[in-house]
Amino acid sequence: MDLTSISSPSFLKSLDNEQLKELSEDIRSFLIEKLSVTGGHIGPNLGVVELTIALHKSFNSPEDKFLWDVGHQAYVHKILTGRADQFDTLRQFKGLCGFPKRIESEHDVWEAGHSSTSLSAAMGMAKARDLQNKKNYVVPIIGDGALTGGMALEALNHIGHEKTDMIVILNDNEMSIAPNVGALHNVLGKLRTHGTYNRAKDDLEYLLKKIPAVGGKLAGTAERVKDSLKYLLVSGVFFEEMGFTYLGPIDGHSFEALEENLKNAKKMKGPVLLHVITKKGKGYKPAEQDKIGTWHGTGPYKTETGAFVKSATKAPSWSGLIAETARKLARTDKRIVAITPAMPVGSKLEGFASEFPDRMFDVGIAEQHATTMAAGMAADGMKPFLVIYSTFLQRAYDQVLHDICRQNLNVVIGIDRSGLVGADGETHQGIYDISFLRHMPNMVIMMPKDENEGQHMVKTAFEYEDGPIAIRYPRGNGLGVPMDENLKTIPIGSWEVLKEGTQAVILTFGTTIPMAMKAAEQLAEANISVEVVNARFIKPLDEQMLVSLQERNIPIITVEESALQGGFGSAVLEFYNEQHLQANVKRIGIPDVFIEHGDVDQLLEEIHITTEDIVKLVRTSVTESSRYISS
Amino acid sequence: MDLTSISSPSFLKSLDNEQLKELSEDIRSFLIEKLSVTGGHIGPNLGVVELTIALHKSFNSPEDKFLWDVGHQAYVHKILTGRADQFDTLRQFKGLCGFPKRIESEHDVWEAGHSSTSLSAAMGMAKARDLQNKKNYVVPIIGDGALTGGMALEALNHIGHEKTDMIVILNDNEMSIAPNVGALHNVLGKLRTHGTYNRAKDDLEYLLKKIPAVGGKLAGTAERVKDSLKYLLVSGVFFEEMGFTYLGPIDGHSFEALEENLKNAKKMKGPVLLHVITKKGKGYKPAEQDKIGTWHGTGPYKTETGAFVKSATKAPSWSGLIAETARKLARTDKRIVAITPAMPVGSKLEGFASEFPDRMFDVGIAEQHATTMAAGMAADGMKPFLVIYSTFLQRAYDQVLHDICRQNLNVVIGIDRSGLVGADGETHQGIYDISFLRHMPNMVIMMPKDENEGQHMVKTAFEYEDGPIAIRYPRGNGLGVPMDENLKTIPIGSWEVLKEGTQAVILTFGTTIPMAMKAAEQLAEANISVEVVNARFIKPLDEQMLVSLQERNIPIITVEESALQGGFGSAVLEFYNEQHLQANVKRIGIPDVFIEHGDVDQLLEEIHITTEDIVKLVRTSVTESSRYISS
Repeated sequence: MDLTSISSPSFLKSLDNEQLKELSEDIRSFLIEKLSVTGGHIGPNLGVVELTIALHKSFNSPEDKFLWDVGHQAYVHKILTGRADQFDTLRQFKGLCGFPKRIESEHDVWEAGHSSTSLSAAMGMAKARDLQNKKNYVVPIIGDGALTGGMALEALNHIGHEKTDMIVILNDNEMSIAPNVGALHNVLGKLRTHGTYNRAKDDLEYLLKKIPAVGGKLAGTAERVKDSLKYLLVSGVFFEEMGFTYLGPIDGHSFEALEENLKNAKKMKGPVLLHVITKKGKGYKPAEQDKIGTWHGTGPYKTETGAFVKSATKAPSWSGLIAETARKLARTDKRIVAITPAMPVGSKLEGFASEFPDRMFDVGIAEQHATTMAAGMAADGMKPFLVIYSTFLQRAYDQVLHDICRQNLNVVIGIDRSGLVGADGETHQGIYDISFLRHMPNMVIMMPKDENEGQHMVKTAFEYEDGPIAIRYPRGNGLGVPMDENLKTIPIGSWEVLKEGTQAVILTFGTTIPMAMKAAEQLAEANISVEVVNARFIKPLDEQMLVSLQERNIPIITVEESALQGGFGSAVLEFYNEQHLQANVKRIGIPDVFIEHGDVDQLLEEIHITTEDIVKLVRTSVTESSRYISS
Repeated sequence: MDLTSISSPSFLKSLDNEQLKELSEDIRSFLIEKLSVTGGHIGPNLGVVELTIALHKSFNSPEDKFLWDVGHQAYVHKILTGRADQFDTLRQFKGLCGFPKRIESEHDVWEAGHSSTSLSAAMGMAKARDLQNKKNYVVPIIGDGALTGGMALEALNHIGHEKTDMIVILNDNEMSIAPNVGALHNVLGKLRTHGTYNRAKDDLEYLLKKIPAVGGKLAGTAERVKDSLKYLLVSGVFFEEMGFTYLGPIDGHSFEALEENLKNAKKMKGPVLLHVITKKGKGYKPAEQDKIGTWHGTGPYKTETGAFVKSATKAPSWSGLIAETARKLARTDKRIVAITPAMPVGSKLEGFASEFPDRMFDVGIAEQHATTMAAGMAADGMKPFLVIYSTFLQRAYDQVLHDICRQNLNVVIGIDRSGLVGADGETHQGIYDISFLRHMPNMVIMMPKDENEGQHMVKTAFEYEDGPIAIRYPRGNGLGVPMDENLKTIPIGSWEVLKEGTQAVILTFGTTIPMAMKAAEQLAEANISVEVVNARFIKPLDEQMLVSLQERNIPIITVEESALQGGFGSAVLEFYNEQHLQANVKRIGIPDVFIEHGDVDQLLEEIHITTEDIVKLVRTSVTESSRYISS
């Protein structure tokens, strides 16, 4: 069918299973084709085609509320709620968001981007429903990976205790972004395969052995599986212990199984957990065969072959450069270990992991635990390298402050995806870490101008013995600069003059340095001489340089791809203020609004962080300043 | 024995159980007496006297590592490690810290203050041990309340998966600060009482019924209890499912049971969880009989009667004032609900709870869940009042940013214990919330000058319909001002001139207002005319007033009991900078170091936030300024 003709999910009610199957084929073809151009979260969405259709057939959105945990698997939901015609603009500037978005549709009742929020939000909505005497269903859909996140466990605990009516869909695809770890995953694993679960009772064991490996064959034996597993589960497994009625596991690609179980779930009182087994990338070979998460989220690809459309750059990726440098240092410094919360691939720690398997810890989606575990290792003499995306480090704010900084422990934090991240949009922008780390005592924050300086900063970080130190680095690739053979350390708090100048100075760091250099060149052509400083330490500042700049009495322009409130420019203002020094500072940075998805360059233009904006501000400042002097 | 003669716990090795019992009596008397003068966490410490003695006898600290979760139950540990002589200074300025403190003793290997960090830290230390081929034991001691915290669950999950050697002591006193909630607690509950656990298998049920109520009588029947429960647990309960060997529950006041079980635990491979039942306040009647947590942490009391030494003030407590105003408003606005993460008593929500039991949610120690649940309720039309201590709100940084602010939901956040909190020290100071909330788009932050304005702010917050709004209020009592009968709303972003003046202006809010008024009085006597402004909105600022102050060209002094980095003064600097306005701003606030425990007034003196400091700074500023003008 023509998916763009869908305006509401109500048409599903009258379709039979054959028609639903056809629809799911159409949706798969549509997704595979559209995403080959735009890129996007193809694997997770191909995995939930039947599940999403079945949910929209069984429930009445938006009265009944679907809460998509993490949210990147809501493409099918977007198609079924009348947004197929917008997929050409998916994840693009002013285009369709890659996550649920309340302003896009009344069917998007909850926004996410970070993992493990859906159960807490569902608890809120369920209680709101009960207090308002409404009768709607509340249906969070959560992956097995997201379920290991602390706040999801907190919510399970509370929901089970209160016996609140809701239907939790556990979308178990055996793999979140990376292979999951954790005992909870093991409990799920025991349900999946029959050989490993040691029961005290022989009769249970006997029943258990009859359970087939779950997957495509499940539908035919669903009844028996359900009964025997039910027996098993009632006798003690996790969810029942937590107070949930457990249904499943069922084949998440079978409309029959889904319909029947959703029907049962709707009849039950209290919280129900329906355990659904799905296959990521289902229906598209290259994505189905993916073992390590390459097809979790992709850029453009060739539909027929699944070959990725490579970008032209030959520069190393930032993640790779930083992780590989840590790996190199780990060869001689046995204290170095790496810790990642479920991002070994994204953070390019595979090499580290294969060389040092016992010094690599993927703790699952558990940023809080990862951070405090790093603190614990540091407290006993190790040098942990805690690698977290900027946006996910937000989850560990208190652990960085209370456990690492307060005890002044030698943890190296690799803040990956710092700055604007582009297509993932407002939930993923890494633009707050400076503002939330800068007020933590003992913290050192740095950002390299290029990958060569990046490798030296990794060295600097691991040699530093006076407390926590963070290296920010952006998403994407380096600049392709020549790399020094030997690593060296950079003096803490030292900035670097990249270009001398006399009439104004630009203080900036990381991704905005090339922009500043270009601005300086353009200004030179107009006979305005501008100095450019690589303010590579955001904390501590290079106070000596700041004092000498102030003495030169020229305009000081700070440029950052980061929130202005409490940011780097603000630190410069605070320093001069503290020293009771008058300085003519102007700041460029990210204003006090959330920044949506889009190409990073487009976003920067939108928020006025461009070469042109710098040129303009320097010009005005220099003119004003000379007016001052001449008056 | 003379406890002050203890220099190391090694003397315990040669004591028999009778001598240990005598020692525990001595320690109890010592604690009851000492804390009657200083105040402190009496209940939790009386509960772990035998447990702490048994741990120090069974293990060799500091090679073996004790990690006290939350940390306020480490007094006995401090006594046994040679610090009894410092108890007269407990929780006082420059005195003995109320929590483990690494600089105090080599036996304090991990510091805490916030809940649920011990398992993650233990995982780090256990892995560090294994990688360094050391053989020491790692022993986290965690309460049943702390176990419901998300990060503890994340850690359990990871430890169980990795089968890491450690001995977790679950100190189960059936009550953390308030009666616990949550399904996990229910699982524990099932172990405690026999009637409620429905087993599928009759034979297990039969065995189960033989288990006596645990408590004092347990020791005598320990063997039988252990066997039958063991059977029960192996067949499926939580900890075994998570990959732990479960031992217990045992009587935590029996040296015999403790010694035997610790001996067994030490022999086992992989993670062991020893479930210990203790009684908070054990051995001191008033504390033993406490049902609601009054004796969790106290001020001074009369030893014989347990009567608290009342402070002279008759002003309402801030927590009470704010909570009671919300309760009043909730009578007419049915959308108002209250959410607390395990602090109903501390936050004085008992009245609200008893009047609106179905609109009050104590979610346990689960700040993340509490915050996102509030967002979920707001997304469905409710007006949640999320009450969290400033220091614990740190745990929910991402949830406030990602779930509340990003979706711009109408959640009212009551930030209790804002500012310095005194005796609890550096882990509990509420001095970062301005710095970590100010860069969140859509957030409104306010703080009242007195309890009358406080009640109006509660009204203002619930009437506000444009997104999240936070009211900060300090620990302790109000000023005793007259209270208006009728509540009114305060225009968002409006400041108030408290005292007019011509030569300088002080911008301040909350607790530092009286200090500023006093300074202005003293300066008036010296013929310096100073304006004092109640800058009750920290975000948004009163921009109109800021502009007009700048036009008056007088020194502007900001004063805050909050971190200077990214704080209120910094916001003022940012505003003038953004507007390209030159203003003579000077800031007083908390410097970039952690602030230890002590009387708040002493701490303020130490960090130079006093009337005298304000007077001094205004004087210099006015002098400088007039020099400027005259030159």
